[in-house]
Amino acid sequence: MSTAVFPGSFDPVTTGHVDLICRASRMFDRLVVGVLVNSAKDPLFSQEERVAMLQEIVKDQDNITVCSFEGLLVDFVRQQKADAIIRGLRSSGDFEYELPLAQANYKMNQNADTVFLATAPEYSYISSSAVRELLRYQADISEYVPETVLHYMKEQGMVSR
Amino acid sequence: MSTAVFPGSFDPVTTGHVDLICRASRMFDRLVVGVLVNSAKDPLFSQEERVAMLQEIVKDQDNITVCSFEGLLVDFVRQQKADAIIRGLRSSGDFEYELPLAQANYKMNQNADTVFLATAPEYSYISSSAVRELLRYQADISEYVPETVLHYMKEQGMVSR
Amino acid sequence: MSTAVFPGSFDPVTTGHVDLICRASRMFDRLVVGVLVNSAKDPLFSQEERVAMLQEIVKDQDNITVCSFEGLLVDFVRQQKADAIIRGLRSSGDFEYELPLAQANYKMNQNADTVFLATAPEYSYISSSAVRELLRYQADISEYVPETVLHYMKEQGMVSR
Amino acid sequence: MSTAVFPGSFDPVTTGHVDLICRASRMFDRLVVGVLVNSAKDPLFSQEERVAMLQEIVKDQDNITVCSFEGLLVDFVRQQKADAIIRGLRSSGDFEYELPLAQANYKMNQNADTVFLATAPEYSYISSSAVRELLRYQADISEYVPETVLHYMKEQGMVSR
Amino acid sequence: MSTAVFPGSFDPVTTGHVDLICRASRMFDRLVVGVLVNSAKDPLFSQEERVAMLQEIVKDQDNITVCSFEGLLVDFVRQQKADAIIRGLRSSGDFEYELPLAQANYKMNQNADTVFLATAPEYSYISSSAVRELLRYQADISEYVPETVLHYMKEQGMVSR
Amino acid sequence: MSTAVFPGSFDPVTTGHVDLICRASRMFDRLVVGVLVNSAKDPLFSQEERVAMLQEIVKDQDNITVCSFEGLLVDFVRQQKADAIIRGLRSSGDFEYELPLAQANYKMNQNADTVFLATAPEYSYISSSAVRELLRYQADISEYVPETVLHYMKEQGMVSR
Repeated sequence: MSTAVFPGSFDPVTTGHVDLICRASRMFDRLVVGVLVNSAKDPLFSQEERVAMLQEIVKDQDNITVCSFEGLLVDFVRQQKADAIIRGLRSSGDFEYELPLAQANYKMNQNADTVFLATAPEYSYISSSAVRELLRYQADISEYVPETVLHYMKEQGMVSR
Repeated sequence: MSTAVFPGSFDPVTTGHVDLICRASRMFDRLVVGVLVNSAKDPLFSQEERVAMLQEIVKDQDNITVCSFEGLLVDFVRQQKADAIIRGLRSSGDFEYELPLAQANYKMNQNADTVFLATAPEYSYISSSAVRELLRYQADISEYVPETVLHYMKEQGMVSR
Repeated sequence: MSTAVFPGSFDPVTTGHVDLICRASRMFDRLVVGVLVNSAKDPLFSQEERVAMLQEIVKDQDNITVCSFEGLLVDFVRQQKADAIIRGLRSSGDFEYELPLAQANYKMNQNADTVFLATAPEYSYISSSAVRELLRYQADISEYVPETVLHYMKEQGMVSR
Repeated sequence: MSTAVFPGSFDPVTTGHVDLICRASRMFDRLVVGVLVNSAKDPLFSQEERVAMLQEIVKDQDNITVCSFEGLLVDFVRQQKADAIIRGLRSSGDFEYELPLAQANYKMNQNADTVFLATAPEYSYISSSAVRELLRYQADISEYVPETVLHYMKEQGMVSR
Repeated sequence: MSTAVFPGSFDPVTTGHVDLICRASRMFDRLVVGVLVNSAKDPLFSQEERVAMLQEIVKDQDNITVCSFEGLLVDFVRQQKADAIIRGLRSSGDFEYELPLAQANYKMNQNADTVFLATAPEYSYISSSAVRELLRYQADISEYVPETVLHYMKEQGMVSR
Repeated sequence: MSTAVFPGSFDPVTTGHVDLICRASRMFDRLVVGVLVNSAKDPLFSQEERVAMLQEIVKDQDNITVCSFEGLLVDFVRQQKADAIIRGLRSSGDFEYELPLAQANYKMNQNADTVFLATAPEYSYISSSAVRELLRYQADISEYVPETVLHYMKEQGMVSR
C-alpha cells in the first residue's frame, strides 16, 4: 500500500492546497496531510484550528488523514511509513528552494522520495502569505481559501460577512 | 492498482534515467517506460535498439514494462490507463520547460497527473545529448550510461574496448 | 497620442495573444499588432491569413490596427511612431529571453520602451508552438485559439468539425 | 487620459528609480509615484523625507505627482483612477517575485494592469537595500542615488562631504 | 603573485566550503579565507571558533591563510591586495543573488574581480543553514561538515558521539 | 605559472568578449583564447578571420595567446596545460546552460576548473548572435564589436562606412 505525506504550515489552507491534496490522494492509496507546528511568532490560526479545518475539508475522502507534526520532516515520514513526500511547485523559484531539501531528505531516507506536482495555472498566484497580507487590509479572499476556511473566518469576525 | 508512465527518447538511456526508473517503480504498482519514436534525423540508436536496451536493464524488475509509442503523450497515457506521468528535473531550466507541458497534459486528461522527481545530485550533469557529444570525440562515457549500454556500444565498435 | 506596437508571428494567434491585445489596447490610445513575416520553412498559416484572422478578431475595437512587417522591430516601431513595444511574459524563462532584446531595442530607439505584461494564469501554458504540436496529432485545441481561428481551421479541414 | 502608478518604498530613491520614473512618464499622460508607508523598523528616511526628495527630483516634470499611501496597492490605484501599475525588473528573480502580485492585483482590479519595464543595464546592480548597506560602511554611493539625495545626505551628515 | 579572497560566514564551515577552498587554492598563488564577523543574533559558533576550525582544516596547505574581517568586502579585499573574490554557485538562484554584488564590488575596485566556481554536484544540497536546521533536531550531519567540525561538535556535546 | 583558457566561437568577437579577455588576463599569468572551429553552416567569418581579428585585438597584451581548436574542450585544455577555463555569465539562463558543462569538464579533468566571470552590466545585452541579427538588417553595431572588427567589416563592405 502506497502512502504519501503532504507537509505544510497551512496557515491558512488555500484553494491551491486543496487542489494538490485531491490530486495527490488519487495517486496514492493513503495520503497524510502533515500540519507543521508553526514557529512563526504571530500565526493566523493555532495548530488545532489548522488541523480541524483541514479535517473538515477532507472529511468525505476516506484515504486522507490529517495530523500535526513537529521536528524534521524525514522523521515524520518514517513514522508514517510513507513512500513519498508531496510538494507543489508554482514557479521555478519554488523549485530552486525545494531541490536541495528534496535531495537532503532522500539522502536521509531513501524509502521516501519527494514528488513534485505543478500548481494548476488558476492557483499559481495563491499562497498562504498572500492571504495573510490581504486579510490585513480586509480585501476579498474568497478565491484564495476554501469555503470551510472562509466560513470559519466569518464566524471569528476575521472577514466581514 | 496505480500505474505511471515514464516517457522519453532514451537516445541513449543514461545512468540518470535508470535512477529515476528505479525510484518511480518503488512508488507505483506498475511503471511503463515509454520510448518515444525519435523524429531526429540522425539518432544514435534505432527505436528497436533503445527498447531492447531498456528491457535488458529492467529485466529483473517485475513491475516495469518497456514499450514504444508515437504521437501525443496523453493518448499513450490513456491507452496505458496510467494515473501519473513521471518526469525528472535537473534544474529550474528543466522545470520552466516542463511546467506548461504538465499543465496542458492535465487539462487534456485529468486522470493522469505529472509527477516530477528531482534528479539525484550525482547525475545532475548527465543527459543523453551530453553522451552523444562525448561519443563524437571518443571521450569516456562510462559514468554516463549503464553497463548494458556501454557493453552494446563496445560490441558495435562505437567506443573502444 | 500614445501608440504601442505588439509584435509577433501569430502562427496561429492564440487566446493568450487575444487577452494581451485587449489589455494593451486599454492602456494606449492606439495599438498596432505587427505580424512578423515568418521565415519558418513550414508555417501553419500564410502571412496574409494571419493578418486576416487578426483583423477579423479585433474588428470591433477601433483603436487597434493590424499590419505585417519585415526586418528589425525598431524600424517598424519608428515607422509607426510608437512609444511602446508590448511583450507578454509567461515565465522567468520568457523574461531571460526578452531582457537583452528590450535593452538592445531601447539603446537603438529611446522613444519606444518595451512594456511587459504578465500572461494571465489561465493562459500560461498556451503558445503558438503548442497549438502546432497539438494539431499534428488532431488533439482538441478549442481552449488554445479564439473562435475565429478555430472556425477558419475547420473550414480548411485542419481540425475535424 | 491614461494614468500610471509607480509604487515603492524609495528608502532611498535610487538612480535606477529615477530612470524608470522618467521612462514611465513618457508613456502615460499622468504618472503618480506612490510612496509606501514603510513598516520597516529602522528606515533610512521618514515618509515625509522620501516624499519631499522625490518631489524635488520630479519638480520640472509636469505630469508627475508624488504622494504617499498605506494599505493595499489596488486600493491606492483605484483611488488614483489609474490604468496601469509600473514595476521595474532587474532580473528573472525580480519577475518570479512580481508575477503572482501582478496576477493577484489584476484579479482584484481589471481596470489597472501591471506594466513591467526592464531596468537599464547600467542600473541593474543598484537597489535601495544596496545603498543602505553601503552607507553603513561609509562607502561611496554617488552612482547609486540622484544628486538631490546625495546632497540631502551630506547636509544630514550621513555621508562625508 | 595572484591572491584570492574567499569570504563567508562559515557558521559552520561545510564539506562544500572545503571543496571550494581546495579548488581555489590550486588556481591562485595565495588564498585568504575571510571569516565575516557574524551579525546573526544566535550564531552556532563564535568568530574565534570559526576561524580556529578553518585554520585546523587548512593547516597543511601552505598557501592558505584564514582571518576574520568586518565591514565591506571590498575594503578587506583591498587590504589583502587580492586580485580575485571567490564565490561558489549551487544554483541559478545563487547566481541571481550574487550577480549584483559582483557588479557592485567590481565598480568599487576594478583590481579584484569576482570569480564564481560551480559547486560540485555531490555538495549541491549542502549549506550552513541546512546544517544548523539539522542540528536543531539531532539529525546526522556527518556528510555536511568536515571531520574537524564534527569532532569539535562532539566535544561540545552538540552532536551525540 | 597559472594558465587559463577562454574558449568560444567568437563569430564575431564582441565588446563583451574583449572585456572578459582583459579581466581574465589580469588574474592569470597566461591566457589562451581558444577559437572553436565553427560547425555552423553559415558562419559570419572564417576560422582564420576570427583568429586574425582576435590576435590584432590582443596584440599589445603579452600574456595572451590566440589559437584555434577542434573537438572536446577538455582535450584542448589539457594540451595547453591550463588550470582554468573562463566562461562569462550574463544571466541565470547562461548559468543553467553552463553548470552541467562545468561539472562534466571537471569530472574529466580535475586539473582545470571552470571559472565564471559576470558580464559587466553595460555589455549584458550583447552577444555574437545579436550582432549577426543586426547585421542582416544593416543596423548600427558600433557598440557591439571592437574597433578592429568594425574596421574589418567596413573593408569587406559588410557595414556601410
